[in-house]
Amino acid sequence: MINQQISFLTAADALKTVERQTSPIGLTRKENSAEHSWQVILAATVLAPHSAEPIDLLRVIKMLSIHDLPEIECGDVFHYAKDQDPDLPARELDATKRILSHLPIDQAQEFLALWQEFEARETPEAKFAHAVDRLMAFIMNQNNQGGTWVEHQLTAAQVLDKNSHVAEGSSAIFELIQQIVANAARKGWLSE
Amino acid sequence: MINQQISFLTAADALKTVERQTSPIGLTRKENSAEHSWQVILAATVLAPHSAEPIDLLRVIKMLSIHDLPEIECGDVFHYAKDQDPDLPARELDATKRILSHLPIDQAQEFLALWQEFEARETPEAKFAHAVDRLMAFIMNQNNQGGTWVEHQLTAAQVLDKNSHVAEGSSAIFELIQQIVANAARKGWLSE
Repeated sequence: MINQQISFLTAADALKTVERQTSPIGLTRKENSAEHSWQVILAATVLAPHSAEPIDLLRVIKMLSIHDLPEIECGDVFHYAKDQDPDLPARELDATKRILSHLPIDQAQEFLALWQEFEARETPEAKFAHAVDRLMAFIMNQNNQGGTWVEHQLTAAQVLDKNSHVAEGSSAIFELIQQIVANAARKGWLSE
Repeated sequence: MINQQISFLTAADALKTVERQTSPIGLTRKENSAEHSWQVILAATVLAPHSAEPIDLLRVIKMLSIHDLPEIECGDVFHYAKDQDPDLPARELDATKRILSHLPIDQAQEFLALWQEFEARETPEAKFAHAVDRLMAFIMNQNNQGGTWVEHQLTAAQVLDKNSHVAEGSSAIFELIQQIVANAARKGWLSE
């Protein structure tokens, strides 16, 4: 059993090679999906009291620890990308199944169910996990003179529209995002 | 409350700048303590069935999510370093208190207690967290032609001696480490 688990952990190491759009605060390099995954786990732990509904924090953390694994095959897709490949969800599901197949069957099934629950965004845990995941990009950009907002010339309306679902996971986090967006618009990092 | 939590998460972002000795598998760059923290959380989740004693996995994960935060001030210290600063534990405690002071007091106290519990290595959760933390360096080196073992010309005896405490957290993980060391010695990555 342990050999299968080590085989999975070895394959998952490649998450450190997946480049995201966002940079760590104050750095010019892009962050990778492994360090991002740590950060959303820490954020979920600290911000759990703000969840819209009662949550099982361990399930949230398990979701977040694996939510980006398909990016090892499929890459990180920019949240605001215009021409998203319609086959991406199917390719990500395949990639998730492939990497989880290293694990003993019961763990593979548990993680696949958690990954699908995260993607479906219907349970309190999945909604809160998404809220935290989205928040981090706002905090990074706010501390990087607008970061990817400036780079991709996004508007305040675009950003709020694309993240309105955050309110389902946490109204406090959504209010914070609205404040960050208003501030970014004032600074000219997001156009009107 | 949320502003204090965001202030903490913003400060903790600097964990992405802390360079460790180990490299991700197949890469020449060193890994940072943020991506390492994600990896040990994932490893703890997957390997939890091998813990020597029953554990509260959420507490293990909370410990691992913050265990390296003092490195933001103090840097990562190589596990086999000969001339360790005798003041390092005190400096790390100060650094931990300083970064946690961004948080609301109840969360700061909870995390400080978890950090101290990890350092003391007395509870089942702390012993298991240490076992997983140590294991990852073995897996990295095994997949990097000996990695830091070769770089620092370590011996098999040194490596086993320095990690014998892993058995307290998990005999299965310690057996695995012994196999990896025997294999590394055969390959000449660790001298006799």
